[in-house]
Amino acid sequence: MKFDVLRWNQKNKTINIIDQTLLPIEKKIIELKTTNDVFDAIYKLKVRGAPLIGIAAAFGAVIGYYETLNKLNIDKNISDISKSEIEYILNELKENYFKKIEYLKSSRPTAYNMFFLLNQMMQYFEDMIYRFKSSLNENSCANVNEFLNFLELIGINLQKKANYFQTEDAKLCEKIGDFGLTLIKDGYTILTHCNAGSLATSAWGTALAPIYKAFEKGLKIKVYADETRPLLQGARLTAYELSEKGIETYLICDNMAGYVMQLKKIDMVIVGADRICKNGDFANKIGTYSVAVLAKYHNIPFYVAAPYTTFDLNLKDGSQIPIEQRPKEEIIYGFGKQIAPTNINIFNPAFDVTPNELVTGYITDRGILKPPFNF
Amino acid sequence: MKFDVLRWNQKNKTINIIDQTLLPIEKKIIELKTTNDVFDAIYKLKVRGAPLIGIAAAFGAVIGYYETLNKLNIDKNISDISKSEIEYILNELKENYFKKIEYLKSSRPTAYNMFFLLNQMMQYFEDMIYRFKSSLNENSCANVNEFLNFLELIGINLQKKANYFQTEDAKLCEKIGDFGLTLIKDGYTILTHCNAGSLATSAWGTALAPIYKAFEKGLKIKVYADETRPLLQGARLTAYELSEKGIETYLICDNMAGYVMQLKKIDMVIVGADRICKNGDFANKIGTYSVAVLAKYHNIPFYVAAPYTTFDLNLKDGSQIPIEQRPKEEIIYGFGKQIAPTNINIFNPAFDVTPNELVTGYITDRGILKPPFNF
Repeated sequence: MKFDVLRWNQKNKTINIIDQTLLPIEKKIIELKTTNDVFDAIYKLKVRGAPLIGIAAAFGAVIGYYETLNKLNIDKNISDISKSEIEYILNELKENYFKKIEYLKSSRPTAYNMFFLLNQMMQYFEDMIYRFKSSLNENSCANVNEFLNFLELIGINLQKKANYFQTEDAKLCEKIGDFGLTLIKDGYTILTHCNAGSLATSAWGTALAPIYKAFEKGLKIKVYADETRPLLQGARLTAYELSEKGIETYLICDNMAGYVMQLKKIDMVIVGADRICKNGDFANKIGTYSVAVLAKYHNIPFYVAAPYTTFDLNLKDGSQIPIEQRPKEEIIYGFGKQIAPTNINIFNPAFDVTPNELVTGYITDRGILKPPFNF
Repeated sequence: MKFDVLRWNQKNKTINIIDQTLLPIEKKIIELKTTNDVFDAIYKLKVRGAPLIGIAAAFGAVIGYYETLNKLNIDKNISDISKSEIEYILNELKENYFKKIEYLKSSRPTAYNMFFLLNQMMQYFEDMIYRFKSSLNENSCANVNEFLNFLELIGINLQKKANYFQTEDAKLCEKIGDFGLTLIKDGYTILTHCNAGSLATSAWGTALAPIYKAFEKGLKIKVYADETRPLLQGARLTAYELSEKGIETYLICDNMAGYVMQLKKIDMVIVGADRICKNGDFANKIGTYSVAVLAKYHNIPFYVAAPYTTFDLNLKDGSQIPIEQRPKEEIIYGFGKQIAPTNINIFNPAFDVTPNELVTGYITDRGILKPPFNF
């Protein structure tokens, strides 16, 4: 991908992202400077897609760390600091830092990658604290500068961790692409829902990675992209990124998917995932379940592409996945223009859950997983 | 219904309609004065819904008759006119008049009611001509004034015919409502797609007629309305007319229907129809087929409500129904604002075909018809 959809600025400790709500009309880069900015960007879908949300949140946790650190009250004029003082400060640091992380986590409840990566950041933070504390002698004092350096080192290490997540995500997606490629035959027409492409990840995308790989290999493929109401990620993002690459893409309204399948135009469906349970049930953008049922009815293989970071093995089945409800304005004023009576009741779940029996297979960074699923 | 969605002005020989493309934001009444106006209003969905298109076209055929008549070149200063001259004039009248009708028919290809009613208008016209010709003596002359009165009488009779269609449509819809009511139980939640309500017909609507009847009877019912992309008739019209009446209505995006069914919120589906074939296959607004498949998968009864004027017994099955393809701009600029790359390929069928095996029953003005269907 030529353009990074998310870039960490090490110098300023800020995140640059494309504001995806404005695509494809405007390609505006915005800078996220605070955890509030990151929360807002995730909540408003300026940055979206389960893997990319995870990465944005991980860098958000770096920003959150520095915000917490800068509010710590440490007297730099003294030379030594007691162990109990250090412990007090570190407890305060942890408490306030974890509040920042919980705040970031509360931006969107469904996609698992953010929780997975933020939990790793928290664990990593705790490990560093634990090791530092263990290195202190009982009743001894530490040099304040050394302590301050340690606090700075935590920030540097958290940055490295987030950078690693971003680099790793690109590799995971490429592996998904390579495994998924083996399922695609020359002449295939593939239907996808929402956007699980390069705009949803660090590079290749998940659902679109096998498509990009097939195209690079020279296979003749076509893609039908559901526009994906209410926020139109399919129309605005998938149609955009695929056609930019030169892949033959047809945009349809969500309600046309069944008819396109009836006309025998679709050879396979590939979608992304926001959270996958132990039994193979999974959550993805609202409408995915309908596509899965339609695919089943038409005997069309239905694949889900996702890296290991999307698998939540704590959840037995899909009934345990929290489903985000979004504001009614997204539907009524979805495009700036009112399209329904303002006093109408709205049901606006951002995701739905597809049961395992509708999934032909999972395309993961570790291979293609076939049913029965028991992760 | 308090407001007529279509009103014939006998004095001016024009049609007043609500411009339905502006609802629910603006309730603008426009006047259709020419067959071009009527064609344009139908093509642009200012007037829509299979039964209402039929009625608009029937009155359009009245306008077309007067347009044709006014272009006839008859010398009113002579007193007598020969039979051969009359025949020549009547042939010319018929030829030009039928051209107007064919023009009206070309406005939209799928909904059958327009063809049914316009064919009746043509037949009625031919019958009048035939009887008049038969009344003339061979080689005799007729009085020019009598001939001119006859030509005027044709117009009056065509108006009466169109008026009859409109009155009859209201009665047919009410009967559909009464028959459909027998299927609805207290506490039912009903899902509908597009708008087959009072805005699609002369009064009660087709799919919504049983819902209005149930509400009038005091049954506690809820309705889920698919917004129905690309032109959002569900959001703009169904949500509007049902909530105006005080019926508990939930607006959802099309891609949410499956999830709502999975959550076991839907007791039955009722949709309208644009054309029904001899074997029970039918065409209706794009997305209907997907809803039918989803209903089948969830064991939810799926009913189609339509008057006899929607049944096209010339067509053996759904493969013979012409499906209108609409411009790509409807999807890309569906909300006034660009939502996709302008160079993208678009597939934009206005309708789809649902096979008979997905239909639980037809709610018609003559009763509820159950499979196997052989009309």
